[in-house]
Amino acid sequence: MPATMPGVAGRTWLDHVGHIAERGREILSRSGQGRRLQSVEALCRRLLSQRGEASSIALASDLVAVIHRMDGGETAGFLGMLATGFSPDPQRLTAAIERWQREPDRDSLQELITTVEPPRQELFRRLNSAPGGTRAIVDLRAALLDLLPSRPELEAVDADLRHLLSSWFNRGFLHLEQISWQTSAAILERLIEYEAVHEIRGWDDLRRRLGSDRRCFAFFHPALPDEPLIFVEVGLTRGLATAIAPLIDPTREEADPADADTAIFFSISNTQRGLRGVSFGNFLIKQVVTELTLQLPNLRRFATLSPLPRLAATLARRGDPDGFTAGRLSALLEPDATALLRLTGEEEVVPALATLLAQPRPYPPEVDRALERLALAYLVCVRRGERTRDPVAHFHLSNGARLERINPGGDVSPGGAESCGVMVNYLYEPSQLEINHERYVESGEVVTARHLAARARRVEAIWKRGDATS
Amino acid sequence: MPATMPGVAGRTWLDHVGHIAERGREILSRSGQGRRLQSVEALCRRLLSQRGEASSIALASDLVAVIHRMDGGETAGFLGMLATGFSPDPQRLTAAIERWQREPDRDSLQELITTVEPPRQELFRRLNSAPGGTRAIVDLRAALLDLLPSRPELEAVDADLRHLLSSWFNRGFLHLEQISWQTSAAILERLIEYEAVHEIRGWDDLRRRLGSDRRCFAFFHPALPDEPLIFVEVGLTRGLATAIAPLIDPTREEADPADADTAIFFSISNTQRGLRGVSFGNFLIKQVVTELTLQLPNLRRFATLSPLPRLAATLARRGDPDGFTAGRLSALLEPDATALLRLTGEEEVVPALATLLAQPRPYPPEVDRALERLALAYLVCVRRGERTRDPVAHFHLSNGARLERINPGGDVSPGGAESCGVMVNYLYEPSQLEINHERYVESGEVVTARHLAARARRVEAIWKRGDATS
Amino acid sequence: MPATMPGVAGRTWLDHVGHIAERGREILSRSGQGRRLQSVEALCRRLLSQRGEASSIALASDLVAVIHRMDGGETAGFLGMLATGFSPDPQRLTAAIERWQREPDRDSLQELITTVEPPRQELFRRLNSAPGGTRAIVDLRAALLDLLPSRPELEAVDADLRHLLSSWFNRGFLHLEQISWQTSAAILERLIEYEAVHEIRGWDDLRRRLGSDRRCFAFFHPALPDEPLIFVEVGLTRGLATAIAPLIDPTREEADPADADTAIFFSISNTQRGLRGVSFGNFLIKQVVTELTLQLPNLRRFATLSPLPRLAATLARRGDPDGFTAGRLSALLEPDATALLRLTGEEEVVPALATLLAQPRPYPPEVDRALERLALAYLVCVRRGERTRDPVAHFHLSNGARLERINPGGDVSPGGAESCGVMVNYLYEPSQLEINHERYVESGEVVTARHLAARARRVEAIWKRGDATS
Amino acid sequence: MPATMPGVAGRTWLDHVGHIAERGREILSRSGQGRRLQSVEALCRRLLSQRGEASSIALASDLVAVIHRMDGGETAGFLGMLATGFSPDPQRLTAAIERWQREPDRDSLQELITTVEPPRQELFRRLNSAPGGTRAIVDLRAALLDLLPSRPELEAVDADLRHLLSSWFNRGFLHLEQISWQTSAAILERLIEYEAVHEIRGWDDLRRRLGSDRRCFAFFHPALPDEPLIFVEVGLTRGLATAIAPLIDPTREEADPADADTAIFFSISNTQRGLRGVSFGNFLIKQVVTELTLQLPNLRRFATLSPLPRLAATLARRGDPDGFTAGRLSALLEPDATALLRLTGEEEVVPALATLLAQPRPYPPEVDRALERLALAYLVCVRRGERTRDPVAHFHLSNGARLERINPGGDVSPGGAESCGVMVNYLYEPSQLEINHERYVESGEVVTARHLAARARRVEAIWKRGDATS
Repeated sequence: MPATMPGVAGRTWLDHVGHIAERGREILSRSGQGRRLQSVEALCRRLLSQRGEASSIALASDLVAVIHRMDGGETAGFLGMLATGFSPDPQRLTAAIERWQREPDRDSLQELITTVEPPRQELFRRLNSAPGGTRAIVDLRAALLDLLPSRPELEAVDADLRHLLSSWFNRGFLHLEQISWQTSAAILERLIEYEAVHEIRGWDDLRRRLGSDRRCFAFFHPALPDEPLIFVEVGLTRGLATAIAPLIDPTREEADPADADTAIFFSISNTQRGLRGVSFGNFLIKQVVTELTLQLPNLRRFATLSPLPRLAATLARRGDPDGFTAGRLSALLEPDATALLRLTGEEEVVPALATLLAQPRPYPPEVDRALERLALAYLVCVRRGERTRDPVAHFHLSNGARLERINPGGDVSPGGAESCGVMVNYLYEPSQLEINHERYVESGEVVTARHLAARARRVEAIWKRGDATS
Repeated sequence: MPATMPGVAGRTWLDHVGHIAERGREILSRSGQGRRLQSVEALCRRLLSQRGEASSIALASDLVAVIHRMDGGETAGFLGMLATGFSPDPQRLTAAIERWQREPDRDSLQELITTVEPPRQELFRRLNSAPGGTRAIVDLRAALLDLLPSRPELEAVDADLRHLLSSWFNRGFLHLEQISWQTSAAILERLIEYEAVHEIRGWDDLRRRLGSDRRCFAFFHPALPDEPLIFVEVGLTRGLATAIAPLIDPTREEADPADADTAIFFSISNTQRGLRGVSFGNFLIKQVVTELTLQLPNLRRFATLSPLPRLAATLARRGDPDGFTAGRLSALLEPDATALLRLTGEEEVVPALATLLAQPRPYPPEVDRALERLALAYLVCVRRGERTRDPVAHFHLSNGARLERINPGGDVSPGGAESCGVMVNYLYEPSQLEINHERYVESGEVVTARHLAARARRVEAIWKRGDATS
Repeated sequence: MPATMPGVAGRTWLDHVGHIAERGREILSRSGQGRRLQSVEALCRRLLSQRGEASSIALASDLVAVIHRMDGGETAGFLGMLATGFSPDPQRLTAAIERWQREPDRDSLQELITTVEPPRQELFRRLNSAPGGTRAIVDLRAALLDLLPSRPELEAVDADLRHLLSSWFNRGFLHLEQISWQTSAAILERLIEYEAVHEIRGWDDLRRRLGSDRRCFAFFHPALPDEPLIFVEVGLTRGLATAIAPLIDPTREEADPADADTAIFFSISNTQRGLRGVSFGNFLIKQVVTELTLQLPNLRRFATLSPLPRLAATLARRGDPDGFTAGRLSALLEPDATALLRLTGEEEVVPALATLLAQPRPYPPEVDRALERLALAYLVCVRRGERTRDPVAHFHLSNGARLERINPGGDVSPGGAESCGVMVNYLYEPSQLEINHERYVESGEVVTARHLAARARRVEAIWKRGDATS
Repeated sequence: MPATMPGVAGRTWLDHVGHIAERGREILSRSGQGRRLQSVEALCRRLLSQRGEASSIALASDLVAVIHRMDGGETAGFLGMLATGFSPDPQRLTAAIERWQREPDRDSLQELITTVEPPRQELFRRLNSAPGGTRAIVDLRAALLDLLPSRPELEAVDADLRHLLSSWFNRGFLHLEQISWQTSAAILERLIEYEAVHEIRGWDDLRRRLGSDRRCFAFFHPALPDEPLIFVEVGLTRGLATAIAPLIDPTREEADPADADTAIFFSISNTQRGLRGVSFGNFLIKQVVTELTLQLPNLRRFATLSPLPRLAATLARRGDPDGFTAGRLSALLEPDATALLRLTGEEEVVPALATLLAQPRPYPPEVDRALERLALAYLVCVRRGERTRDPVAHFHLSNGARLERINPGGDVSPGGAESCGVMVNYLYEPSQLEINHERYVESGEVVTARHLAARARRVEAIWKRGDATS
């Protein structure tokens, strides 16, 4: 956990951390297996009993050290202890409730508010005061999220952590930084580690990803100075990029950014599993658009190149709640039916499509045409409540972007298989973001580029009919 | 509210702020006097209804702008609205309580926790996401603290603000910076403005306060980059400084810091009224001691030169709850009684002392000797519960400092009158801080330098006897 | 001479400087008055004899310290010693010349080059290696420039210093920094001290000069990190500012910089007397124009508001080499002659003008009209060789600016008297700079705004006639 | 040549450089092969004719661009042109000489000084004013050094370049920076590229070289902000490290730097071939010692672990001017003669040694003992004039270090073969540096650790006898 000490400029606290790790080891090993948890609990209770003095930092630092040294089992035990031992005291809560029921005034309400707050919240706040405390808390939550499916009693602890982390990682405390080859190696190695969408293959590949016709931006939090919390990679291109391969081609020539008219956001990665549900992405893209506009006044267009990560699974699972019934599928494939049957020798379009998608790329133009139509239906018609089912589409549409273009064959790499190779451009038109956002949020409308609008209506009509007949 | 935009390096958002102020004016003036508050409330409700999208930042920015433009009456109205309109909903709270009483499980507890939290907390959190949000919240609290004595119904809002500000201004998010003549004027002018203990008389005086034999350190928070939240001024001296005048003498010669063996903390100022009760001072001194040790390995001693801000009032109010009864006072003055009577012609020591203290300095040595004894009694015997009544003494003693020396005549300026001119050195001995702290916190013991110990015991004995006889 | 040590981030060398001063004092006081210079000379010779080892830095530091401590007489003595004792050795030079005359090949030329270089150049280079060395050299030159008029034998030393300083302070080693209220007080106090054109009256005035509708930029050199070598103050205005008073009015309201369409360069100050003749100003304005264009895309016009610092003296000295003969003056005043005579009761225009200019402002419109014409003649017709005689005009014209507007009454302050209150706008039109520069440098043509062109031609015609008749 | 523009904070001039490259291409391609040089010469002459105006920067930038685009042949042609076309004008030089001979006063001397300076010096100074100018000049010199052996007429150009670069890269303009994993990748990749002593094998190896028990420092020049000019790698160890392998072992465990008592300088690399002869190394080690003392007060000892890069060649070349005659060699090997003969079956020690050294390591103890004695003789007795012949030893001894320990088998890697596997510790004892330096520089004395002193005297005695008998 090397980091800059929150202190006078530039002094690192590496040695301090070494020392912390040492103390953590000591505390954990003070006693036999069975008694460790007890001593950690005692440390937590002592920390909670402090009244704001400087010594509380020392105790909090000890707790950071202890958490840092815990193995998986110890962490699980610790979280369990927080769930049971640091919840609101039922007796005091009962008393506070009764007082409020008797006399529902300001004082009794305040007491109720105070009593119902789980003491572990204050414990986390004090832990957060020590060097490395924020890191420890984020890591604890990451561990908790792994345990949660099998340990539902930890949900209350998760609620507290999420509550606090949302407050601490609010947009106002984050700052945007441009990442480039001038950035510190300590930060750059995180990009290689965390890039979730299109893998970065080592330092040489990274250098190309940060070439003169690329831009990268990240949000940072002052308590985690070496951690890009989320980062976006941008390609500067002439015209709209419709396929991913040329953007990440390791042998490409760098272009002159002054010639670019378009910025393509081709990868957004969250890095901190422990911050799941604490969203930054919405703010990131908008701010990067503003920043790029200042840096490169020639840019005319800001768009993503995004996958459809569940398209293949959805098509394979027709008939399921997503609504891709065989009837709808047949109707959607109708325009290319003859070709699909001819190409496969099948007698029905649905199995014909399956056969064709199982073959290696490139597909004949009729298949790509059919895929584009299916992707459009998937984006426009497959819903979860008021929102589009596809998570990536939902993210961009609720940001106010519009559906700009569907590119079958946009990602022919193995990673593209789950999108059936289809990639989508969502367009961020600064002046339209607010309106588009309102339309999507209020009526669930998927705003599309003009050239897609008529087709979207046709697809919707087919979908509704399928609804009627299914 | 000029500040650096939490964004890409160096771009200020002055213009942005101009724009914000403009929007605030628009919103406030949209409607006639009577309807303003309604439109602000509507803005708050809209902000609360957002689901994490980027547009919430725009709404929060509008609210920042509005708060920025409010006059005193509008601010009071706004705070009142928060107190009444953004409290927990009584019906939902009743329902949540009943559910929990029926079925006290995790889910019902979680619902109770969620329901009892005043919605204004979430409102503040969202406000905090916008540029300038933290500033606005701190300023709101400052306004609230002014209103509180006459508007007790705002206490609930204060509780929420204090709760959130304690969480956001935790030690882990602060960083220590050295302040020097190399520091930006925007920060330095704050020192002139905020210095609370020994006034800084303009820029020339400030330059001397930051001379080569002076050090100044402050805590900063990333969301208020130009605001030193608390700062301490340090003089580097040979030997223990026992009077303030030479330290702040505008005509003094600067000494070579390499010759200094002692660091004197002679002024600590909190700058943000809105952060009252969110303490930093405890951490500040300890960290500055560490920092100075690294910078100047020749330093052997770290001590304060502090006032006794209520001594004069306490002595004037003998017989009051502080316990300076006439009997005790007489007993304490006994060793110098003859001299005091002779000097004044009075017949009793208590009025003699009063007469003498009313005269201009310098005092005869007997008066100073008597004052030293009274100050010792005041520090060691006048209590509020387990702690020393003097707030400055309590601050340093609970930090683990010890009472090192009492200096009658340490501050002969008009500002020193409330301390009867007495100043005190508290010594920060790094290796003893934890032990001293424990002794003070657990038994209320005032740890003193060896040469004061016997006198402290004698004074305590006199005090106890006074107790018995009064 | 406190400064940041050119070393690891942030550590100041204040103490080091204290130490240096101490050593300087020691060395200077080692011997009686008469022998001091000898010991300094010995130090110089030892420094010159070093062969690049680290110890040469120690010697150079000693010499820095010595120079730092010298009083005026000692400095003069030291410079004299450099002039006589550290010149090329005549015997070695004679030998080198004879060798070259005998055998004019590469080797003999190289030896000649080496031999003819005054050893003090190498001495200065070595001095420059020590912390504070550059500062010492610049200060030495400032002292030398003061002595030069009475000590012509120092010219050779000046030639060496100018040669070296031009090389060290080349544009490639300078960096432009924006100066604002966020800048360090150590730098800002230099602005107050050095502002040469329109005095800054303390810190409050400075704060206004750096308000939101003002910009300030300076060049810095890495070896003098706290010294703005030259700085320019810019006002952001709507329309062309034609008078100085509103720009520096301490009571003015700050305007929104986003509303500005014009940047007015109203003050350029060189700060280092020791760098006289090492010019930066030409580069400064061009780079600031570029910088402002990026910051504020709304700016459409970049212009100066400049004095005519010798106009009054020139008019008073008619008949002198500047060419303002009585005949020309009369001819130029002709269009307003009737009014001038009427206003004064004089019988001839030349004394009438003198009378009027001796009166307090404001002048009647006819006087202002006449002044504008005289200023135009002064700028266009009064020459020194191929160039305009007015130094400010020459500076901007040779930069490629054009004469845009003449404003009688532009500076009614006492400081404006030497310009007869006239101020001039020179326009920097980025796309025209190169062409204008060529025209001015090659043919001496003063490029003017279109509306001034015909009048300039008329004035030139009058001037030429005067030439013929004088 | 991507770099930070010497301008307002943080804006890179990548695009600008793209533009420059483009202009360079244009200028170079304006004309056919044969005429290119002419157009470059014309550009140089135009640049020289400028009188300090801003436009000279544009011309200088064009020249930077041209140099940037030159291929090897063009560069050679360009340098040749500088050698012939930009030398002092013989006629003007003759006239200046004659004037000085006639009238050897200040003015004539000044004219001689001015006339004899080759005009290319001023050309280089102007080139240096443009962005990228310094880089271009350093690169030109690197190219020149490659050509020099076959093109001796370029020596005059080299003299000028060395002269100017020494002036520009003087110690006072350099700053020391610590290099760590927090440093920018753009700088770190230079370490991988330039490490000259013990190869760094990619980024993972580099990360270990910058681990918590390693330190790295470099000198930077403001005009080459991404270029570490020279860097030193330091290992923090307990006790004196006597072998290189453990220090650069990729599998080693990182130690706690607080436990270290010794700093081992195990690699110093100059990175800029174009700066050959402009030395920084002397200053670097001393400043790093100071810096480490501040960072890690536990360090007690500062030493190098250095190769003997010519030992193998010297031993192989016995009888040569280095003085390792067969007689001396035999005498030095005498103490181990029996063992050497036994181990090899040879009849004489000299061929026995050769045989043994040709075998793979490890050597029997007798061979190592013999090697240590030979290395001692090599360091103490083999001279070039007053100095030790070994360049590494000379570097450290003239810095004031002392010969501390000779470690046969210190480097058993293939790279160690030229040192016969021997490594040497030179000790930097801060308080002794000046004295040692004086002793070495004035009398050529190799100061050794006490335990080596007697052996050094014995070896010298043998050597002198060899002298007598050879």
